[in-house]
Amino acid sequence: MGGRATIRPLPDEGDEALLRLKPKPNSDLLTPYVAVRSFTERLCETLSPEDCQVQSMPDVSPTRWHLAHTTWFFETFVLGNASGYRLFDERYPALFNSYYNSLGSQFPRPRRGLVTRPGLGEVLEYRAHVDRHMRARIESGDLSAADRAALTLGLNHEQQHQELIVTDIKHVLSLNPLAPAFREDPLATVDAKPAGAGRSIAEGVHEIGHEGPGFHFDNEGPRHRVYLQDCTLDDALVTAGDYLAFMEDGAYADPLIWLSLGWQALQEQGWEAPLYWYERDGVWWQHTLAGPAPVDPDAPVTHVSYFEADAFARWAGARLPTEAEWEVAAGADVEEGGFADQRVAAGRAIHPSGHGRYGEVWQWTSSAYAAYPGYAPAPGALGEYNGKFMCNQYVLRGGSCATPSDHTRPTYRNFFPPEARWQFSGIRLAR
Amino acid sequence: MGGRATIRPLPDEGDEALLRLKPKPNSDLLTPYVAVRSFTERLCETLSPEDCQVQSMPDVSPTRWHLAHTTWFFETFVLGNASGYRLFDERYPALFNSYYNSLGSQFPRPRRGLVTRPGLGEVLEYRAHVDRHMRARIESGDLSAADRAALTLGLNHEQQHQELIVTDIKHVLSLNPLAPAFREDPLATVDAKPAGAGRSIAEGVHEIGHEGPGFHFDNEGPRHRVYLQDCTLDDALVTAGDYLAFMEDGAYADPLIWLSLGWQALQEQGWEAPLYWYERDGVWWQHTLAGPAPVDPDAPVTHVSYFEADAFARWAGARLPTEAEWEVAAGADVEEGGFADQRVAAGRAIHPSGHGRYGEVWQWTSSAYAAYPGYAPAPGALGEYNGKFMCNQYVLRGGSCATPSDHTRPTYRNFFPPEARWQFSGIRLAR
Amino acid sequence: MGGRATIRPLPDEGDEALLRLKPKPNSDLLTPYVAVRSFTERLCETLSPEDCQVQSMPDVSPTRWHLAHTTWFFETFVLGNASGYRLFDERYPALFNSYYNSLGSQFPRPRRGLVTRPGLGEVLEYRAHVDRHMRARIESGDLSAADRAALTLGLNHEQQHQELIVTDIKHVLSLNPLAPAFREDPLATVDAKPAGAGRSIAEGVHEIGHEGPGFHFDNEGPRHRVYLQDCTLDDALVTAGDYLAFMEDGAYADPLIWLSLGWQALQEQGWEAPLYWYERDGVWWQHTLAGPAPVDPDAPVTHVSYFEADAFARWAGARLPTEAEWEVAAGADVEEGGFADQRVAAGRAIHPSGHGRYGEVWQWTSSAYAAYPGYAPAPGALGEYNGKFMCNQYVLRGGSCATPSDHTRPTYRNFFPPEARWQFSGIRLAR
Amino acid sequence: MGGRATIRPLPDEGDEALLRLKPKPNSDLLTPYVAVRSFTERLCETLSPEDCQVQSMPDVSPTRWHLAHTTWFFETFVLGNASGYRLFDERYPALFNSYYNSLGSQFPRPRRGLVTRPGLGEVLEYRAHVDRHMRARIESGDLSAADRAALTLGLNHEQQHQELIVTDIKHVLSLNPLAPAFREDPLATVDAKPAGAGRSIAEGVHEIGHEGPGFHFDNEGPRHRVYLQDCTLDDALVTAGDYLAFMEDGAYADPLIWLSLGWQALQEQGWEAPLYWYERDGVWWQHTLAGPAPVDPDAPVTHVSYFEADAFARWAGARLPTEAEWEVAAGADVEEGGFADQRVAAGRAIHPSGHGRYGEVWQWTSSAYAAYPGYAPAPGALGEYNGKFMCNQYVLRGGSCATPSDHTRPTYRNFFPPEARWQFSGIRLAR
Repeated sequence: MGGRATIRPLPDEGDEALLRLKPKPNSDLLTPYVAVRSFTERLCETLSPEDCQVQSMPDVSPTRWHLAHTTWFFETFVLGNASGYRLFDERYPALFNSYYNSLGSQFPRPRRGLVTRPGLGEVLEYRAHVDRHMRARIESGDLSAADRAALTLGLNHEQQHQELIVTDIKHVLSLNPLAPAFREDPLATVDAKPAGAGRSIAEGVHEIGHEGPGFHFDNEGPRHRVYLQDCTLDDALVTAGDYLAFMEDGAYADPLIWLSLGWQALQEQGWEAPLYWYERDGVWWQHTLAGPAPVDPDAPVTHVSYFEADAFARWAGARLPTEAEWEVAAGADVEEGGFADQRVAAGRAIHPSGHGRYGEVWQWTSSAYAAYPGYAPAPGALGEYNGKFMCNQYVLRGGSCATPSDHTRPTYRNFFPPEARWQFSGIRLAR
Repeated sequence: MGGRATIRPLPDEGDEALLRLKPKPNSDLLTPYVAVRSFTERLCETLSPEDCQVQSMPDVSPTRWHLAHTTWFFETFVLGNASGYRLFDERYPALFNSYYNSLGSQFPRPRRGLVTRPGLGEVLEYRAHVDRHMRARIESGDLSAADRAALTLGLNHEQQHQELIVTDIKHVLSLNPLAPAFREDPLATVDAKPAGAGRSIAEGVHEIGHEGPGFHFDNEGPRHRVYLQDCTLDDALVTAGDYLAFMEDGAYADPLIWLSLGWQALQEQGWEAPLYWYERDGVWWQHTLAGPAPVDPDAPVTHVSYFEADAFARWAGARLPTEAEWEVAAGADVEEGGFADQRVAAGRAIHPSGHGRYGEVWQWTSSAYAAYPGYAPAPGALGEYNGKFMCNQYVLRGGSCATPSDHTRPTYRNFFPPEARWQFSGIRLAR
Repeated sequence: MGGRATIRPLPDEGDEALLRLKPKPNSDLLTPYVAVRSFTERLCETLSPEDCQVQSMPDVSPTRWHLAHTTWFFETFVLGNASGYRLFDERYPALFNSYYNSLGSQFPRPRRGLVTRPGLGEVLEYRAHVDRHMRARIESGDLSAADRAALTLGLNHEQQHQELIVTDIKHVLSLNPLAPAFREDPLATVDAKPAGAGRSIAEGVHEIGHEGPGFHFDNEGPRHRVYLQDCTLDDALVTAGDYLAFMEDGAYADPLIWLSLGWQALQEQGWEAPLYWYERDGVWWQHTLAGPAPVDPDAPVTHVSYFEADAFARWAGARLPTEAEWEVAAGADVEEGGFADQRVAAGRAIHPSGHGRYGEVWQWTSSAYAAYPGYAPAPGALGEYNGKFMCNQYVLRGGSCATPSDHTRPTYRNFFPPEARWQFSGIRLAR
Repeated sequence: MGGRATIRPLPDEGDEALLRLKPKPNSDLLTPYVAVRSFTERLCETLSPEDCQVQSMPDVSPTRWHLAHTTWFFETFVLGNASGYRLFDERYPALFNSYYNSLGSQFPRPRRGLVTRPGLGEVLEYRAHVDRHMRARIESGDLSAADRAALTLGLNHEQQHQELIVTDIKHVLSLNPLAPAFREDPLATVDAKPAGAGRSIAEGVHEIGHEGPGFHFDNEGPRHRVYLQDCTLDDALVTAGDYLAFMEDGAYADPLIWLSLGWQALQEQGWEAPLYWYERDGVWWQHTLAGPAPVDPDAPVTHVSYFEADAFARWAGARLPTEAEWEVAAGADVEEGGFADQRVAAGRAIHPSGHGRYGEVWQWTSSAYAAYPGYAPAPGALGEYNGKFMCNQYVLRGGSCATPSDHTRPTYRNFFPPEARWQFSGIRLAR
């Protein structure tokens, strides 16, 4: 075998190559389809077949699995409805179904990293096959409304997996003592902390949740009224420097500022700092997607669990906002941020470098992930998308440097268990 | 050694015996103090030293530990403030502190069942010693306001442990293939299901939380406004018969009606029915505190987890109420029910037998246990009482057959992890 | 309940009381039966019902279980053969069968400590009941040869459990931060190290294994020839002082002197010294059956695993003997030592205090526990006594301070897994 | 990325390519060096980078790790002694040292499958680099006696890893529901069972162990005398058909024929048949290196643990031989068998197909792996090769279809824990 195998997202050797497609005027879905699918492969272009194989912990999936699973989604929920479509491989659905019990049994999640075949080459062929058929379906113009909805959901789904590809490979590479970089791109300089007085909310009835024509996940609705008390959310994210002060004050040795389960997690897992931080000769370093780097005190702290966010807030004499407060305070603005696609296009590392509500780090809220009043999951298999995870998870709002730029909005509800640290998760305080 | 050692709660051989005290007119706290402390020992009167030793799982504490820990609470938070009081034994605080980190290290909870000394006799002496000093302090009339507050908290605390004594010993005895009874008292006949149309709530702003002069835990306040949608809560609890229909419909084999974590718990722990149920020759039996008994289809189902309650509600086309809905629907009434003390006094088994909001089974709500807006824990060690547990637990409302009759109210928030099944936990549906 | 409940081994209130029996002349088995059974209860006389309840790790059994199981052995293998005998309680066999699969299912070993009833009082009644019937059977003179063999095996079996009662309760009490003593007896002064040149064996064919009329376990035979090389076994046991030198030389931090599994056990379990040793202000102390005591450098080291014994020998430039070498070197002598019954009778603590081959500490050999050539287990349930444990265990020879004085001999094979440390296990070197 | 990356063991594009080397007359070590190193790569030629990445259980190592570790061995123990040699990469020793504590810390074994870089391409470059330098050292003629010994050890070491590569990848591929083959080679027809009366040994003193000029591992010596009893070893291996009879007789449900630890392993791991067997529609199939195949009743049973071998022998009224019996019975013959290299050269699958003592399946003996009398490990790091594993393992004798043909001999001692099943381990009975 020769050198490192690489994923080449821009093939040029045949007219069925996805990315040279000239979308036809009426095919409004073709452009986003091509853009999303292409960006997934672009993201992986520096990874070897070995990198794409590994599952470094149960929460992480192999990159190759992400590449296949997102493809399976379109094959199952869009192509599968069409008469005449033949599966690329009849054995794939059992391998690449993630958690849809209504679609049959699934290969056990914690063992995804043990399956070596189909290899990366075959998975890329699978992607190309499904892309060809999807293009044909889109161009044919005979997609039903349900097909179009499923296709749109599939794109948003793939964007979620783009973010997971980034966070998962960061974890995989972090375990290698050789400290490889995901991409050699340089870290950006950090924007100054905003000096504002924060965004305030007045006590009373407010509305939250998605409404209107744009795409949203079922868990973002229905839009409904909530009663909020007076409060103010900080303009700036908590920085690594702020967090160092918390650490230096002995926070990781003081049970009194931690939730009971947080203190237990800290002790069992030996937490002494955010994930990926390590000390060398008195200096704090971190594993980044661009390789090892000193911790920048002005950058937003990230890779903290809900437990750490909650303890920091208590230590700081503040608290985490609820998700309703966050959403009302955010208003309609989606500020420009440093989203994953923008960073990749600019040749910059995927790493937080500012204080925006979006595009830097996800922000833990104090809200347990639960159904909104009147929430009803979709019928059929897609009803398993969100609802069944509404237990023992906490909502994060905003969007991170690993989020694609058109994949976030004020009503978006991200959620993870309180001990999760491998996402780009940070802290914005409420008072 | 002779026969079974027993706890005798009504000693009559000395004038310092707690229960013959003649409370002085001004000593308003003496009567409840004596009543609560005495009932704890009354509850244990059928238990042997061996029964009081065992910790059958980490969630369970040995009865002897409950007897000592509740005593330590008064010694620490009331007597400890008085000059001149000497600890009964200087080594006890490290053994009987439950989780108050601000008071020093604790003996590890999962190992409580491994400590055999002080034995039951010494722990009863410890109780008598503290009771004598408490009596003297109460009668002296020089308790500070903080002392009186701590004493009242200590009584409510001990009532919580009375309920735990019952649920914990039920678990301990259930593991014995000889199927011993906690008490030989007979099970009561079950009240008929109420025929009402349920209690409805109108959409709008409502208030919940405790306010006013009576005792309440810090987590019950502050009273605050919430916005609720229209809904109705059933008058009747879900019965064992209802639950059998759910089981017979294949619920324990159908992942689609379960939360993802619930399905995982079911598989890992092999759940096929509520805790304590078992099948013999096609008939469902259950372990009760009065020994084995057939499952009564008219009695409220109990010993179900949040996961089972949630799945049942989904299967039934309904949902669990939120805690705010439950509280608003309950209103101010605390109906008469079959509380633990009333059942013991009547010589009836501690076992649910009706459909009341209180005194039968705790009712799971869909609300994650969280701080109310403006919640602030008490300063000092007592601030650890509630706040630090506000994570990955769900609120239960009402009160069960193991709850003392004066230890519940509409604002009371009980809470357990969603997989907990050893409490008397049941289901009331909302629609 | 009053003070500490105690086991009274010498009842005097009824003529069926076992210990006042006047054995009839022909009843040669009555005297040893009474002696063994009585000593078991004598051993436990200082224990409370709570002490007798606890199983501190899976290897340990509750004292009360030992008291019942040894009784079950006679009931099953001697009384059970007689027509007309009725079980004391038909539910006991399933509780007190240890591991005899041919006799039906067993209550799971790791959960023995969770069963609280029958309590200590009932178990003592069970003992008295079986003792009465055994006495009648012995006195009747109509025991078959098989009955007599089973009875003799039962006595040796009970003596093994006497040693386990001692080692198990030592472990139980060691977990109590109050550091209670099993008995308040004083530690003995330590005999001087013998000054001899060791016992040598000449290369050639030797014989080992039991032969002749006396009782022996099946695993001690058949007597057979082995080929040995020249070697010498030390006269003295390795002392605590020797072992401290090993520790001070960094042994617990140097993987090169450990077996690979030993190094793994050391790291996983955090071994830094023998079991029960702990350091206070630069001085090594140990938990003993008489309470805390400083480590005596002249006493034999004990509570070491096979791994530690093996590493010590390697560090010392010697090796552990094989069991054949040990047996040949020991010859026919059973020296006087400080056996458990002798120590109890003398009011001295059960604690090693000399360098004898017997009566101080068991001595690890390098021999994996395996069948001798031609070994055949007994038919029926008693065939499960020894053979099925011949895997991943190492043989210890000699006998310890917890061994009864007539329960050891040169051919006796004790065996434990290489990580076991709660027995009185020590080291004698070969060269 | 293109198609499947493959290992090409026979490069032809440059004169430093190892395999076109024309060994010089005096270079007696060059031919075996080239042969062994080349066969390793030949073995892997069908594997993708993904296949080479996975560690399917802690016992298994990734193929890529085997490729690198065997190279590290020569770099460390031969090249490392030469002044002027520079490591290929200074970071590799910490990654590819297996267990030599004297050479510094090692990357944790259970996490080998998480390291994705250096990838397969770089590891093959590493192999080529070390091969060039080894060739130069061999051809230079100035290897010291220690160097030559280390080189020879390194070749035998690499042959051990060749066998592990085969058994490890079999396990990896077995977990894939797509059931891929390692090689598409056909299974051979099975030789008939030999009809002989077995090989007998007469009671008396015999000698075992290696002696003389040929290579042997330190654990094969010193040659020494042992005393054996009369016995006979079967000519034929136990077949799959024999084993099916054992299974059909209820062996996996009958605790009485199992060692206690074996019964425990069976229950914990759910054993119902040899590893890799599964039932489909009443027919037993197995995963083989050539893909799924029906179990052939005439072929030797393989992939059984020591526990299963021992239970089978007991059920059959026979026993396992000791390793001394096996060696004496085997005599000096090394029969022709179907060794791995021969099978690969013939285009046949690596799968047992006869009844030879060598070249089919390893044969469990009843001997715990222990030092021979007078055994002394080599000084220095190589002393860690064998000795430290002499605990809780059992010796296997012979050699399997995955063993290279010149890597076995009558004195060879293979060893694995009694629960190991992923080696080609089978059964030969003694009586």
